[in-house]
Amino acid sequence: MKRISIIGTGVMGEAITKAYIRKGYQTTVWNRTPSKTKPLTDIGSSLAETVSGAVKSGDLIIAAFTSYEDLANQLEPLDLNWEGKVLVNISSGTPERARAFGEYTLEHNMPYLDAAAMSGVRRIGDTEEGLFLFSGQEKHFKSMQDVLQILGKINYLGEDFGLTPLYDSALFTMAWGSLIGFYNASAFVESEGLDVRRFASVAGSHTPFINSLFREHSSAIHTGQYPDDDGNLAIHASAMQHVVAVSREKGLNTIFPEFLASLFEKGIANGLAEEGIASVFKILKKQV
Amino acid sequence: MKRISIIGTGVMGEAITKAYIRKGYQTTVWNRTPSKTKPLTDIGSSLAETVSGAVKSGDLIIAAFTSYEDLANQLEPLDLNWEGKVLVNISSGTPERARAFGEYTLEHNMPYLDAAAMSGVRRIGDTEEGLFLFSGQEKHFKSMQDVLQILGKINYLGEDFGLTPLYDSALFTMAWGSLIGFYNASAFVESEGLDVRRFASVAGSHTPFINSLFREHSSAIHTGQYPDDDGNLAIHASAMQHVVAVSREKGLNTIFPEFLASLFEKGIANGLAEEGIASVFKILKKQV
Repeated sequence: MKRISIIGTGVMGEAITKAYIRKGYQTTVWNRTPSKTKPLTDIGSSLAETVSGAVKSGDLIIAAFTSYEDLANQLEPLDLNWEGKVLVNISSGTPERARAFGEYTLEHNMPYLDAAAMSGVRRIGDTEEGLFLFSGQEKHFKSMQDVLQILGKINYLGEDFGLTPLYDSALFTMAWGSLIGFYNASAFVESEGLDVRRFASVAGSHTPFINSLFREHSSAIHTGQYPDDDGNLAIHASAMQHVVAVSREKGLNTIFPEFLASLFEKGIANGLAEEGIASVFKILKKQV
Repeated sequence: MKRISIIGTGVMGEAITKAYIRKGYQTTVWNRTPSKTKPLTDIGSSLAETVSGAVKSGDLIIAAFTSYEDLANQLEPLDLNWEGKVLVNISSGTPERARAFGEYTLEHNMPYLDAAAMSGVRRIGDTEEGLFLFSGQEKHFKSMQDVLQILGKINYLGEDFGLTPLYDSALFTMAWGSLIGFYNASAFVESEGLDVRRFASVAGSHTPFINSLFREHSSAIHTGQYPDDDGNLAIHASAMQHVVAVSREKGLNTIFPEFLASLFEKGIANGLAEEGIASVFKILKKQV
């Protein structure tokens, strides 16, 4: 059974350590302020006095610092033997920063994966709702796949270290689209005295359909051909104008449906009236 | 085995009839232009010469006209015996129109359900991705549940006939939130030369998490208390400003991330900086 070391035991590192302890793994923790590891050593984790000690005690070493700089500051002074080990780093940053750090690890023969925790701290160890992304050399992902999957659903993106922060930003924007749509629909539903919790349940049952639109529309975007299988932009513009009008009657803030309606109008003004709805992509990509 | 009659065989009525034929049901179709039913009678459906005939031949009668008016024009001249039968109507319209027609059916002892097909024509009969909503008297839904579920995933909303069009508008807005988020993220990803089809697959694997946010945030909205479990508005505003900056560098249209960033700023200006992200609802509901 592989041994897991966690360096940096803030809220993220702590949740990660607990997920491995729950599954019966031998864990070692290190933190700049040793007293902060007490909740973890109390439940069975070993304490490393130094970062070197934590690396020596683990097969998989997970770094959970705030930034790449914090990790670099800890690792760069050390001369460590990384043979048979893999370092996984969960820091937020730009693709450029991720690539620079990735290059550093290649130069120093550190088997390394850049990682992103997409579902926050509370879903660490949740294989239904927790999503972790990885980029770097595939052989390192494969060698640690069995233990990485303790963290949640895991997805290897490719060699380019910048892929994890890129996907992180993209999924963040995508998630906010879903959330703003849900909040707006909730305001609409609640203005009729209906229970938004019931609406959330129906909304959840609609996502397999929306996911299938993601699949089909990504093919449309890829080819640049936008079939109108799900209606064309003119039809959706008219339906959205209806939502704007009803929302206004209800005394709601119409900022979101108006934003969409104006986007559709812009598409129509640029010749997309009869195109499938995914052609809105052309506006966002500045193709029209 | 219940007999199914379909009145109005445009694209929607045709898809519905085919779904029942596939499952071995005895179907009867009626259309104002009888020749349009040929693709259905060719594959085994019976043809009714009149609307009365179609109603007599069915236990479940599904009306798939464009509007409530079209249906009313067909039914109002008739004096039919609806005992043991249920009429299900799939027309788009306002909650007021749905309620007015529902009242008419109550006055005339017509067992009636207002319905909405949420996933378009192509997913009729698809129990994974097709969603159908119903409102009206629950006893009618229950008596026909076994045959209605041939249409897709079915969900009974309540007695108020206006619930189906209300949910229809709400789910339409919600779906557009998800789509605009996805298209924007696709533009972001494609600008790095990455394959949007691969992104769509990762995006799909993120929806169980987003659905769990819908559930949790609907409880927050219901109680009016917004815990910061998923970060507060100030943190998300800062992350969204980062997306705006990166998108601008990539030469993308920044209209969507800027829309979100300005919404967050409005929330922060109204004292929501430390509140959980679902507090954006307060802006959309004009509570702040």
